[in-house]
Amino acid sequence: MPPLPAAAVERLTRFQAEIEQLAGTMVGYPCSQDFDYPEITPFLQFSLNNVGDPFAESIYRENSYAFEREVVAFFQKHLRAGTGDTWGYVTSGGTEGNMYGLYLAREVYPDGVVYYSEHTHYSAAKIVRVLGARSIMIRGRSDGEIDYDDLYETLKLRRDVPPILLVNVGTTMHGAIDDLPRLRAILKDLAITRFYIHVDAALSGMILPWVDDPQSFGFDAGIDSVAVSGHKFIGSPMPCGVALARRRHVDRVARSVEYVGCMDTTISGSRNALTPLILWSAIQRWGEEGFRRRVRYCLDMADYAIAQFKAHGVEAWRHKNSVTVVFPRPDDGVIAHWQMAPSRDIAHLMTMAHVTRDMIDHLGIEDAVEIRMEEGRIVLCAPEPEARPVARRKMSVEEAAERGIEKYRRTLEVLGGVVREDEA
Amino acid sequence: MPPLPAAAVERLTRFQAEIEQLAGTMVGYPCSQDFDYPEITPFLQFSLNNVGDPFAESIYRENSYAFEREVVAFFQKHLRAGTGDTWGYVTSGGTEGNMYGLYLAREVYPDGVVYYSEHTHYSAAKIVRVLGARSIMIRGRSDGEIDYDDLYETLKLRRDVPPILLVNVGTTMHGAIDDLPRLRAILKDLAITRFYIHVDAALSGMILPWVDDPQSFGFDAGIDSVAVSGHKFIGSPMPCGVALARRRHVDRVARSVEYVGCMDTTISGSRNALTPLILWSAIQRWGEEGFRRRVRYCLDMADYAIAQFKAHGVEAWRHKNSVTVVFPRPDDGVIAHWQMAPSRDIAHLMTMAHVTRDMIDHLGIEDAVEIRMEEGRIVLCAPEPEARPVARRKMSVEEAAERGIEKYRRTLEVLGGVVREDEA
Repeated sequence: MPPLPAAAVERLTRFQAEIEQLAGTMVGYPCSQDFDYPEITPFLQFSLNNVGDPFAESIYRENSYAFEREVVAFFQKHLRAGTGDTWGYVTSGGTEGNMYGLYLAREVYPDGVVYYSEHTHYSAAKIVRVLGARSIMIRGRSDGEIDYDDLYETLKLRRDVPPILLVNVGTTMHGAIDDLPRLRAILKDLAITRFYIHVDAALSGMILPWVDDPQSFGFDAGIDSVAVSGHKFIGSPMPCGVALARRRHVDRVARSVEYVGCMDTTISGSRNALTPLILWSAIQRWGEEGFRRRVRYCLDMADYAIAQFKAHGVEAWRHKNSVTVVFPRPDDGVIAHWQMAPSRDIAHLMTMAHVTRDMIDHLGIEDAVEIRMEEGRIVLCAPEPEARPVARRKMSVEEAAERGIEKYRRTLEVLGGVVREDEA
Repeated sequence: MPPLPAAAVERLTRFQAEIEQLAGTMVGYPCSQDFDYPEITPFLQFSLNNVGDPFAESIYRENSYAFEREVVAFFQKHLRAGTGDTWGYVTSGGTEGNMYGLYLAREVYPDGVVYYSEHTHYSAAKIVRVLGARSIMIRGRSDGEIDYDDLYETLKLRRDVPPILLVNVGTTMHGAIDDLPRLRAILKDLAITRFYIHVDAALSGMILPWVDDPQSFGFDAGIDSVAVSGHKFIGSPMPCGVALARRRHVDRVARSVEYVGCMDTTISGSRNALTPLILWSAIQRWGEEGFRRRVRYCLDMADYAIAQFKAHGVEAWRHKNSVTVVFPRPDDGVIAHWQMAPSRDIAHLMTMAHVTRDMIDHLGIEDAVEIRMEEGRIVLCAPEPEARPVARRKMSVEEAAERGIEKYRRTLEVLGGVVREDEA
């Protein structure tokens, strides 16, 4: 292969420096960054490919099926699936896992209607659209759980079609867990016996197995399928996840696609074979006790963050067993700097395993920009002792350069702080 | 992160050795193996994620959008899309790209019927099923192209619904290219003006731009969307690809998902950010002239293989501009050893960039197993000078061990050659 031209090397080097810097301000997304998998590097020289079903044999033998099967078994155990009762595979991320679950659901109940709360991840709407399924969005409570009364009333009106419940075990914004026993009680109360429950447990699916008093979340709670992310709690250099589903549903779909000449029960077909190796490595490295310790750290850190927020008069809170700390929406500059995903009047931070007390204490005192908690909210300030807010004043490119804050260009652009080059 | 336990290190080391060995016998799949991207390694320590649309801005700033946009631009240019006329993104592989194209098609023509030939990759049936689209499979010619007459007659019977043509630019088995001008002539002849053409150009989409006399394959041939793989002709340690589509179709879908609160026009949502870096690197390394040189090498090697086959009385052939060499189905042992994907009475090898004259000359003389072309087909032989075929006799585990052919266990298992441990 020809060498990489010098300009390309330089470009990648600069990119690496940028990313290194950004990694220090990652508190707004549920991606653990405390990982390092040097053992994966040697496999970058092969055309690995986990084509199709990891439990079948493939003529394409450069695969990591054996590792993938062990990863699936680990998730099956901790998501409380009975032996032999479920099937699964490593996906390219949460969306594929949720699409897989809802695809099975639609095959089982072609006339089914998908119900999901307004707090569900935005991709649900896209998936439902791709699948061409009918759906109804249910109101959400202000704490992030589904509005059980609204669900009850809505189901009551359409008892002629089987409901497909998309349940959140950890909503994106609030870390809220929909109450599975309560949802099942609603179905029972309405005498609905034909239903399907898919759980989006992207983040919490790898937290709840390691706490002492988990909410209901697994197959023992009567669910039909679940999607858990691998790049969230566990941490991975690329998005990945695990999809699990009751074997009887999978077999049904397998038969129908086999009928049209396709033996592949996965969504993707050609699949990344490195992500199973990564998840396998993480499992080997942490082990059950390690994951338990790590969850304890994250929950302690969440409590610490809440205490710090409150000490500054900022109303912060979290759900039980959740690392998602919710607080009033701060300045846009803070949001941009800390890569926070706000929603209307709230924002959140996730105390993932790489988040330290130091990061929380400061929420970002840097060379040139200081982010402070004051007056009940978080503001972006100039670094002078008097902490003069810069959020609403313009700053010239020269001034920015002088302060060495070129690297905060985007943060400040969001604020309308830095003027464009041509205005300088 | 805790260290990797010794047993896990050993397991991965063994796996690496296995894969190294397999890589030497990879002639049956269209995956180039002559790549090496050490520049990607440093990025394995970050939580990179190209969430959603690479042309939008994301709060998740640990992304490689800038590189992805350049990759998309490169594919746009060589797939002959007018400036600004198409949109695209880096997918997790061919299936996602084809799903994306057919999803757009179904959104544009909800009452449309998908037509595809029986030589289309098996995943088409799965995609159509996931999308809940109506479809009709059209007969294929024995050389792999669609049967144009069957298509004509079938379309003629259903002129009331818009056809969605899934066209192969390089079929999986024969490397056949459906004739786009002829397909358009059929539509014109039937006065069908509402139609959609999606092209699966998994392999050939990165071959045809580099030959002197390409068949019609790009946007200049009036197509609406296309999927090209990245791990095939270019080569990548994980499956990836590029999906391109006419912007007017994408905008339409964007509006409809935006209406339901989703700003993401990709299928996956959270997306691998390393694969855009890999494709970008490959483009930097090879450049247009390098790709042209590489295609010339592959086509020459295909001709060389055909000549060698013919010299041994094996009837082999290929389509114009194709690296897929088709020949009569050999012994199962040969198929397993060389990781060939046979179909009924034929098999093929792909002269990808890593395939050498030496590999073709021998089609596998190894320490213990020799694969020979004789009597008009390929057979697996013992290595003795008299080339006694072992294909149909049993071999004990002891004999296998003595010959050091434990590593060919699977090859021989397929032959019924090696008896199981308990029989030894």
